[in-house]
Amino acid sequence: MNEFALIERHFQRAPRDAAVRVGIGDDGAVIVPTPGTELVLSVDMLVEGRHFIAGTDATRLGHKTLAVNLSDLAAMGATPRFALLAGALPEPDEAWLAAFMRGFRALADRFGVELVGGDTTRGPRNLCVTVIGEVPAGTAITRAGARVGDDVYVSGALGDAALALAVLERRTQLDDAAFAQARDRLEQPAPRVALGQQLRSVATAALDVSDGLVGDLAHILTCSNVGATVELAAVPCAAALAAKLRGAERPLALACLLAGGDDYELCFCAPPAARAAVAQAAAAALVQVARIGTITAGRALVVVDERGVPLTALPAAFDHFAR
Amino acid sequence: MNEFALIERHFQRAPRDAAVRVGIGDDGAVIVPTPGTELVLSVDMLVEGRHFIAGTDATRLGHKTLAVNLSDLAAMGATPRFALLAGALPEPDEAWLAAFMRGFRALADRFGVELVGGDTTRGPRNLCVTVIGEVPAGTAITRAGARVGDDVYVSGALGDAALALAVLERRTQLDDAAFAQARDRLEQPAPRVALGQQLRSVATAALDVSDGLVGDLAHILTCSNVGATVELAAVPCAAALAAKLRGAERPLALACLLAGGDDYELCFCAPPAARAAVAQAAAAALVQVARIGTITAGRALVVVDERGVPLTALPAAFDHFAR
Repeated sequence: MNEFALIERHFQRAPRDAAVRVGIGDDGAVIVPTPGTELVLSVDMLVEGRHFIAGTDATRLGHKTLAVNLSDLAAMGATPRFALLAGALPEPDEAWLAAFMRGFRALADRFGVELVGGDTTRGPRNLCVTVIGEVPAGTAITRAGARVGDDVYVSGALGDAALALAVLERRTQLDDAAFAQARDRLEQPAPRVALGQQLRSVATAALDVSDGLVGDLAHILTCSNVGATVELAAVPCAAALAAKLRGAERPLALACLLAGGDDYELCFCAPPAARAAVAQAAAAALVQVARIGTITAGRALVVVDERGVPLTALPAAFDHFAR
Repeated sequence: MNEFALIERHFQRAPRDAAVRVGIGDDGAVIVPTPGTELVLSVDMLVEGRHFIAGTDATRLGHKTLAVNLSDLAAMGATPRFALLAGALPEPDEAWLAAFMRGFRALADRFGVELVGGDTTRGPRNLCVTVIGEVPAGTAITRAGARVGDDVYVSGALGDAALALAVLERRTQLDDAAFAQARDRLEQPAPRVALGQQLRSVATAALDVSDGLVGDLAHILTCSNVGATVELAAVPCAAALAAKLRGAERPLALACLLAGGDDYELCFCAPPAARAAVAQAAAAALVQVARIGTITAGRALVVVDERGVPLTALPAAFDHFAR
């Protein structure tokens, strides 16, 4: 099966969106932007052995490959519209590609995303997705708007994906039910698109937590020229992780919760006056939201433990930020 | 040097284009589309060992990585505006990345392209670029508009890139001057952006020749439901390749000329009534254009040799199309 046949069979499909004038199968796609909107663009590259384990279920990987990109759009408050998918595969494995596209398409269809461009080639497995979303002009949420006194929030729960990875790497253990739940968080993240849209007129700053809370929140602090205090006890996590946090595996649990990565939750800031609006946004998006801290003057990120004592060493991912 | 520092140092730069509301450094870029235009999107993935030889000069590779994408926009008649670059590198080699970005930026600046998104990761060397261009609404040139009786054209000259590769792979030889010229065509292709724009109201169909003339022209024929006759003697090529075409290396020369790939010239169709307009477009774009054949009824692609005799076997790349 050659490249063109592969593209035709698995990527090409009559566009369902009237905004797509030309879809896959030409030198480029032609799309009609919605008047009055601005475009939000993001790209992510996933490499086998780095972003996903060799042998990861292809359908789940298809979901995740798009989900991590939609998560970026969610963090900007954008409505996802279009995607382009480039992939290198070690061999033209049609069964693998069909399974991958099932996961990709199911998520794309759920969010009304049209796949408008594709490129396939042979090479070490690598998947690169570009997503295009829209926001009403001037309403995109950036990392730069946090102000001293703002509340800091995260959606959902953190640390489960990293905990599942730790189990897969035999660094810890979980009972079957807890592992299944954590593994779903690792392999089937749910991009918080509805929440991001609801937060457009509410949040002063936002990003998606992909590299761990402390490292990612630090990006907001840098971009906004502020600091933050986060209360560990307020950071939401699943029961299994909470149990480890109270026991002998506390260092591992702390690392998962604060620096785990692959959470794909939103971390955002809003003034205290907007608490009701945040609650309303969360309810409308059917997502839990937890208030975990406060934006402070200065540039420091302080995490205080359950007794109010600052953690002296933040988990390792925070090194990303030590420059 | 970590990922964030690499991105900051090499990718980030204050946007020069007022249409970029948010550039690199947030979850997504925010851009303002020009009212009255449609967007043209294309993605290409380049894998080391497949699309470029390991050890290829990084600055030249930076040029080529963007050039192959701009060539797709050129084929649609689009004006390039924005690009996103994702790259996997075996190690965070700053000197390599700086050299790569020199080539990438120089070409981007020449065409007014803003780099608005980036992602870097560790992995087997792989470069994935998404480009976004604009066309006045309804003017994009597709592969689907060729009509029986149209002339078939190509820009520039074909086969030099494949010939340079054949020299590098020791399958043939060239004198130093001819090799230098051919190698420039391989490593420094010039996207025919100005020609594409000039052809918006002239060409009935177009694409860029990236996989070899016969294979690529076949895409136009499929999309337009037509056939074509191409005159070998009319297909433009450099003197060194023309000499090989007349000699013992004719099979190699034919393969380079008709199925070589990496040409990044435009192949397009236009009615005979538009010959003056095509000449004017070529002159305005400062590019040579050659009329190489005619669109026919049926679906066959026939290449006739210098004596008017159809070639019985088209070179191998044409197999792409045999499905």
